[in-house]
Amino acid sequence: MSELRIAVVGAGLMGADHVIRIESRIVGAHVSAIVEPDEGRAKTALATAPNATWYPNIEAAIAANAMDAVLIATPGQFHEPVLLPAIAAGLPILCEKPLTPDAASSFKIVEAEVAGGTQLIQVGFMRRFDAGYVQLRELIASGKQGELLGLHCAHRNPSVPDTYHNDMLIFDSVVHEIDVVRFLTDSPIKSIQVRHMKRNKLSPEKLNEPILVLLETENDVLATVEMNVSVQFGYQVKTEAVFQKGIAEIGRTAGMTTWADAQIATEEHVSFKTRFAAAYDSQIQRWVNATKAGKIDGPSAWDGYLAAAAVDTGVRALREGGQLTVEYAAKPAFYN
Amino acid sequence: MSELRIAVVGAGLMGADHVIRIESRIVGAHVSAIVEPDEGRAKTALATAPNATWYPNIEAAIAANAMDAVLIATPGQFHEPVLLPAIAAGLPILCEKPLTPDAASSFKIVEAEVAGGTQLIQVGFMRRFDAGYVQLRELIASGKQGELLGLHCAHRNPSVPDTYHNDMLIFDSVVHEIDVVRFLTDSPIKSIQVRHMKRNKLSPEKLNEPILVLLETENDVLATVEMNVSVQFGYQVKTEAVFQKGIAEIGRTAGMTTWADAQIATEEHVSFKTRFAAAYDSQIQRWVNATKAGKIDGPSAWDGYLAAAAVDTGVRALREGGQLTVEYAAKPAFYN
Amino acid sequence: MSELRIAVVGAGLMGADHVIRIESRIVGAHVSAIVEPDEGRAKTALATAPNATWYPNIEAAIAANAMDAVLIATPGQFHEPVLLPAIAAGLPILCEKPLTPDAASSFKIVEAEVAGGTQLIQVGFMRRFDAGYVQLRELIASGKQGELLGLHCAHRNPSVPDTYHNDMLIFDSVVHEIDVVRFLTDSPIKSIQVRHMKRNKLSPEKLNEPILVLLETENDVLATVEMNVSVQFGYQVKTEAVFQKGIAEIGRTAGMTTWADAQIATEEHVSFKTRFAAAYDSQIQRWVNATKAGKIDGPSAWDGYLAAAAVDTGVRALREGGQLTVEYAAKPAFYN
Amino acid sequence: MSELRIAVVGAGLMGADHVIRIESRIVGAHVSAIVEPDEGRAKTALATAPNATWYPNIEAAIAANAMDAVLIATPGQFHEPVLLPAIAAGLPILCEKPLTPDAASSFKIVEAEVAGGTQLIQVGFMRRFDAGYVQLRELIASGKQGELLGLHCAHRNPSVPDTYHNDMLIFDSVVHEIDVVRFLTDSPIKSIQVRHMKRNKLSPEKLNEPILVLLETENDVLATVEMNVSVQFGYQVKTEAVFQKGIAEIGRTAGMTTWADAQIATEEHVSFKTRFAAAYDSQIQRWVNATKAGKIDGPSAWDGYLAAAAVDTGVRALREGGQLTVEYAAKPAFYN
Repeated sequence: MSELRIAVVGAGLMGADHVIRIESRIVGAHVSAIVEPDEGRAKTALATAPNATWYPNIEAAIAANAMDAVLIATPGQFHEPVLLPAIAAGLPILCEKPLTPDAASSFKIVEAEVAGGTQLIQVGFMRRFDAGYVQLRELIASGKQGELLGLHCAHRNPSVPDTYHNDMLIFDSVVHEIDVVRFLTDSPIKSIQVRHMKRNKLSPEKLNEPILVLLETENDVLATVEMNVSVQFGYQVKTEAVFQKGIAEIGRTAGMTTWADAQIATEEHVSFKTRFAAAYDSQIQRWVNATKAGKIDGPSAWDGYLAAAAVDTGVRALREGGQLTVEYAAKPAFYN
Repeated sequence: MSELRIAVVGAGLMGADHVIRIESRIVGAHVSAIVEPDEGRAKTALATAPNATWYPNIEAAIAANAMDAVLIATPGQFHEPVLLPAIAAGLPILCEKPLTPDAASSFKIVEAEVAGGTQLIQVGFMRRFDAGYVQLRELIASGKQGELLGLHCAHRNPSVPDTYHNDMLIFDSVVHEIDVVRFLTDSPIKSIQVRHMKRNKLSPEKLNEPILVLLETENDVLATVEMNVSVQFGYQVKTEAVFQKGIAEIGRTAGMTTWADAQIATEEHVSFKTRFAAAYDSQIQRWVNATKAGKIDGPSAWDGYLAAAAVDTGVRALREGGQLTVEYAAKPAFYN
Repeated sequence: MSELRIAVVGAGLMGADHVIRIESRIVGAHVSAIVEPDEGRAKTALATAPNATWYPNIEAAIAANAMDAVLIATPGQFHEPVLLPAIAAGLPILCEKPLTPDAASSFKIVEAEVAGGTQLIQVGFMRRFDAGYVQLRELIASGKQGELLGLHCAHRNPSVPDTYHNDMLIFDSVVHEIDVVRFLTDSPIKSIQVRHMKRNKLSPEKLNEPILVLLETENDVLATVEMNVSVQFGYQVKTEAVFQKGIAEIGRTAGMTTWADAQIATEEHVSFKTRFAAAYDSQIQRWVNATKAGKIDGPSAWDGYLAAAAVDTGVRALREGGQLTVEYAAKPAFYN
Repeated sequence: MSELRIAVVGAGLMGADHVIRIESRIVGAHVSAIVEPDEGRAKTALATAPNATWYPNIEAAIAANAMDAVLIATPGQFHEPVLLPAIAAGLPILCEKPLTPDAASSFKIVEAEVAGGTQLIQVGFMRRFDAGYVQLRELIASGKQGELLGLHCAHRNPSVPDTYHNDMLIFDSVVHEIDVVRFLTDSPIKSIQVRHMKRNKLSPEKLNEPILVLLETENDVLATVEMNVSVQFGYQVKTEAVFQKGIAEIGRTAGMTTWADAQIATEEHVSFKTRFAAAYDSQIQRWVNATKAGKIDGPSAWDGYLAAAAVDTGVRALREGGQLTVEYAAKPAFYN
């Protein structure tokens, strides 16, 4: 195959970003279609994608044979109506997380994919492509420090937009750690509990945070997640891993060090866009390469379903308290 | 007053250490008495304290007017029979933590002290004299980063002696964090929950650890404590504080950095003796200075009682699970 | 222009690396020609460049109109016979450093370029594309810490190949700092002195190193360069900048931190390939982008000449000792 | 011997500091005499030394048998008239650096001490008691990273008092590195060269700095010293050591780390008083302990002479330029 023709679905913030990424930093692919109902947004995106055509919906793009693969960058509640026709058309798909907002609809996607007989979907858990998480996973796999016993994760945002509401602490934010903990431990989340730190009075009124989420995996690793979306100082995502024989930590920023005003300082990130820039690039490049080779090289629809099931339980734990067990459907042999 | 004459009670590991400390590093005091039933131990300690006399028990030392103040360095279960006669004799006391092993006996000490009409007891929570905790407390008090919302503590030991049993995770080890969390937040522990990380198979068989202890203060700060006594790599005690506007961390070791064998490395502590050497010195020097000035300058018997009450609940939480509320007696006006 | 067709000249270690880079990580370009007299090497490189044709010399490739631009990756002594015909053919060129091995031949290249009337040449001083140097340059330009007064540079290699001889300390290695110091200070090197550290007995016999090179710029900044090619522990390139009001440092490695065996450690690089991987990618991507836009976006032939002139003096300083002044030809208006 | 009775000579800034140190932090000694011509200063110091008597000069104190040992804390030009009578009286002496301001007068002191037949003098090069330098010296001695080849030292002050003039860059400041380089290498300074960084326009007009001093030892180690007294941001003293197989660095500050305002920061020192507080304490405690045991446990008068001789040459190198050789008298067998 020569260049992979990609249809980007959704030309909002995330979609527009991916269009620029594909055009300027991804080898062997270009944006051939912008699928977006809003004509204004579509036009803005088209300006950065010289070889793309606008389609108001996925059906029109499929009918026009406008692409070899689909990148879905709309909000989660709009994924299902794009995923189903794309699967039906046999198109490889990179779908921004979450696969869908809840376990039931995610399982429907899994069933559709299984019915089609070919694995087509990769879910956009881009942290799996971050150098730090990859290094940590290798350390765990190496056994050099013995078995992994626990994880301490922190996910800190300077602030969140007005549209961010309390359940999103789990389904929009902690969902990353839900996937990462599985990625690191190779084991699904068994139970979830949510505890509250003292409420930050600088948070938007509708939010009761920071929270501490306790994730326990089926292989008994306990992970703590500090989820904190109003901490102002910057953007920080880090994980500390506790092994039998030692400790490892990823996510501490580096860069130029300055001595000024009686302080020794380095810059901290202020946005996920810089913190995970390389991970987003790597995710899409590897998806493009794998897709051209007819393979899957990232989290699957099944990974997306497992995360959705854990998120359902997590939202309940946030609302109701207590240590709740996550229930999963049986894994189709298709994903083995 | 010229030099403070100190009776050291208990000439085991800790007591012997304190004798050497007082003789070689503390200004304005010397060891005048070793109180120790075991003659062999006493002789060894006397060799490092040229002006000290041996007494088999506290009553004998009091009868001989052998000291101006008492430093109790026996295990916790032997504190009460030393504390009561020392209080009766009106002697200033530095009592190694815990004040006593449980809330009921600690409250008895509180009552004895109150009855005597003078504050005599300082409890050996030496972390309050560690530069890091002091700096962090000042940052909290300054309000520079807004209100304190949460704490993440880790207490990691390479290994523990054979005598260490499972409840000691709480009453011997986590007790430090129980006091430190109060020291930092100026608020007693309201509730305690214990969760388990994956068990470390390298731990002694009778221990089920590492554990994660969740301490919630009456002013709503949530503290997580990783208590880990078989982690081999070294000795590490650290705390990360989550504020409204930022983060602070203490306990990361510094020192010479070396570039060797493709690694950039600094040494980590391997024992509390080096990690808290300066804190122990500072604790005793300030106690000596305060005692000579007729003052108290450290955690009181009341602080000791509060810790004992929280420890009682913590041990129950360790054994039974669940989020348990700590009950306290009313605070005597005497301690205000 | 659609994709830029690049002829890679030289299919040795460096050239082969660039072929893979262009094919797998550079957007908007591909390798259309491998220019290499050795058929075996050429074949190996061709295997990684599906759209490339082999040419034994640059003249044949030009005659066949095989490329839109030329990347020269042969050793420095072979640059001139490739540069001159490429300039004559009006082809944009990215030439690995050094432009040529000495000032006289470099000036001949400058004259040829000036005679042609168009700027075609970019020299491969890839450190200018390293994030650290870019950040430091911005800090200098910002004036936030006042004027730049001095620089301390270290360039440390674990070892060097057998072909490395003593003068290469200057013309192959220190040449990077000669360019970087100019890049940071915007001022040519005025004088050079070389001092010797104690000789490393683990160095190859023909080398007398590590050395300390003192570079003084025309605007009075003094730079020290520790040039050290047998230090074993790893590969490290760093710079500390001394300002009127503070200090800044770049080049300290980051990454996962581990606590193990009583040490807190991070990995150090062991090769320039990982240390400067991103800088090489960025250099070529920006060259491709600029070339397609008909622009120059990197160090010019004039920068190459200035470095060559300083290197000539540096080699003399290494051999003869003393603080020697660098002589430069007048700058053609063409480069303003 | 019970408590060591110390006469502190000079009750200026440094002397007053030492009086407080001895009274509040040094075990086994007290200040028995303040020797100071200025009555006002003496009175201020006496207020902090309850057991001390005032003497206007050293002769009066000796006549009164007022002390067991002498600590000289006057400026260097006043050391000789105190040292000679104290030596004659056979008193142990801790003399603040420099021993005397020049090689000739220092050698006179050496001769007087040798004539007396007993080693009495310790010179106040307190860096030898700093944990960092001690660790580095041990690493060198261990041979773990092979031979030491070079050192990079930086000595940075935020500012200097009005009385500081240009030669003091060498005899007041670099003198510390002159001694430290010998302490680390066990080899005297063979040659000295001074180069200038760009002058800091924020320096006092009479100063031409920062400077770079190149110290070469008789065993061929090359040390660079950045001497910088107007750098504003804080106080920093550090050393990087280059070995055959690796690198080591001391002097990087640690302490609480904060994440605030998009920066990760730790505090830097702003004065030598905090940077070397522990070293000053350790120096005097060990001097007291050694003196009571009739021993010397620190840099000798001969070390003071060697530093003075190197300083003489360094001042000439600062004024005249060039790489100058240091001349030393033959070492009296007395010091072996």
